[in-house]
Amino acid sequence: MRLVAFYPEFLRDFPTNRRYLVGVSGGRDSVALLHWLKTSGYDNVIVCHLNHQLRGRSAAADARFVEKLATKYDVDFELGCADVRALAAKGKKSLETAARDARYSFFARIVKRRRCHTIFLGHHADDLVETFLLNLFRGAGTTGLSAMREISTRQIDDADLTVVRPLLGVWRTEIDKYVREQGLKFREDASNRDLTPLRNRIRGRVIPYLEKTIRRNIRQSIWRTATIMAEEENFFETLLPDKLSALTALTVEPLRKMASALQRRMLHKWLRAGDVPDLTFDLVERVRGLLDLTKGVAKTNLPGNRHARRRAGKIFME
Amino acid sequence: MRLVAFYPEFLRDFPTNRRYLVGVSGGRDSVALLHWLKTSGYDNVIVCHLNHQLRGRSAAADARFVEKLATKYDVDFELGCADVRALAAKGKKSLETAARDARYSFFARIVKRRRCHTIFLGHHADDLVETFLLNLFRGAGTTGLSAMREISTRQIDDADLTVVRPLLGVWRTEIDKYVREQGLKFREDASNRDLTPLRNRIRGRVIPYLEKTIRRNIRQSIWRTATIMAEEENFFETLLPDKLSALTALTVEPLRKMASALQRRMLHKWLRAGDVPDLTFDLVERVRGLLDLTKGVAKTNLPGNRHARRRAGKIFME
Repeated sequence: MRLVAFYPEFLRDFPTNRRYLVGVSGGRDSVALLHWLKTSGYDNVIVCHLNHQLRGRSAAADARFVEKLATKYDVDFELGCADVRALAAKGKKSLETAARDARYSFFARIVKRRRCHTIFLGHHADDLVETFLLNLFRGAGTTGLSAMREISTRQIDDADLTVVRPLLGVWRTEIDKYVREQGLKFREDASNRDLTPLRNRIRGRVIPYLEKTIRRNIRQSIWRTATIMAEEENFFETLLPDKLSALTALTVEPLRKMASALQRRMLHKWLRAGDVPDLTFDLVERVRGLLDLTKGVAKTNLPGNRHARRRAGKIFME
Repeated sequence: MRLVAFYPEFLRDFPTNRRYLVGVSGGRDSVALLHWLKTSGYDNVIVCHLNHQLRGRSAAADARFVEKLATKYDVDFELGCADVRALAAKGKKSLETAARDARYSFFARIVKRRRCHTIFLGHHADDLVETFLLNLFRGAGTTGLSAMREISTRQIDDADLTVVRPLLGVWRTEIDKYVREQGLKFREDASNRDLTPLRNRIRGRVIPYLEKTIRRNIRQSIWRTATIMAEEENFFETLLPDKLSALTALTVEPLRKMASALQRRMLHKWLRAGDVPDLTFDLVERVRGLLDLTKGVAKTNLPGNRHARRRAGKIFME
């Protein structure tokens, strides 16, 4: 696939004449995304950059770089700042989780202020494959395996956000080629994706090893599997309630009658709405264990000194 | 988990006083399974052994070994013979696929003759993990990732077969330990699982490499993911028609209205009913492409000189 003259079918639902947010770290992928959006006719975009304050003076230089890019392309610019290290310590989260949460909170603020609900992000096919393996090895369950979707919606801080990833079918090498051909400048290491050593190991060692040992196009196979799983996730979402607040107690009886596949997703959605970090299969299963009325245990711990409790036929998050 | 005093909850639906088939190759796992079934009170089992004729005199010795085992345990014995190499050549299948198909055809014959519809198989947790990775790397889609379930039903040659895998939550090391402790004799290499070099590479090289590089319990994570996916597969099956023959033409319009996740499973089930070998995601997608009425192409090739064709609003397998 050549990125020039590239236009994925699902983008037809996002006409070029509307206004969109676009997340730009200043790294290669988001710089390519922004350029591609502009040349594809998306003129009315708002460039959003969060300074994670993780890389000292470099972080400030990244922000200036992205601001200049917005000026050059004659589009709006929104800058946010978050002390991700402090947020991680305070929320007892990994740096990676804290950075992601900070980004989404920042996006939610812009969504509300600018009344613009759709954001384009620069994740590509290799990101999808790496995330799939990362979540597989972590035991994040099926929802984790379909974590990156071309189009997904979520609620953050009462804002409805639609995340669109136009490049999810494009490989890193194709983006590299596009960046070279178009002579685009970008900031090395500006991406905040590299906060997990595990992700780096998967990218730098595990995937090359698998390609050599299996002697098949395993990246393509994994990409396809993740794509199917994302579609199945979309299907499951149509079966779940639209809005699910952590403040709502879940009534046990109807939940007990659901298929396990639905129970898991319902609880996953509820825990995520409650901002429970690092949701693993094990955690969801422990909460699901509360549905078993024959078991005496009616309480299970959640990260950050919180817990889920069954009382009077309902499950509460406390 | 200790295999002695082990009894998985899902086996409660299979009371010990009924009659069951049990597949015994003579290898370590199936010998352990048979011993465990007997000591758990399953007295009325019929030992089924298929001679795949792949290992010459050893294959005949395997069969004699299993027959003696049945005599020793005082249970019925059924022997089948299949020239798997010839079947593979004739059906243009891999040896592995031909061996599996031959086994299931053999089981189906016994099911009909003995009027006993449930078979116990000796697959364990490591088999599950290896199969998951094998199918992931092959691009076999989500149905491939949940290929091994504790309980699954299938139709083969008009026989309804329920396959039960009591040891799917037990690791190979635990089976080894059980075999040692109980002093069980078995035939080295009697298992017919080792027909794929790719599976051997995954077992012998890929999984040890991943464990070393990721430094997490990746087998456990993959096992859990596969288990969730199997449950989701069960959920999807409740949404599909019970019986689906390859002879039935599929009506396009209702299929077009289904979610992609259901279309894929419907077509997968239909193609499997048509005995189409080596079902990949790509193949299912090509057949699914026939649902797109705007595309001129109304025919796609299937393995073995067959094809699927859309005509007069229906899809036929020919």
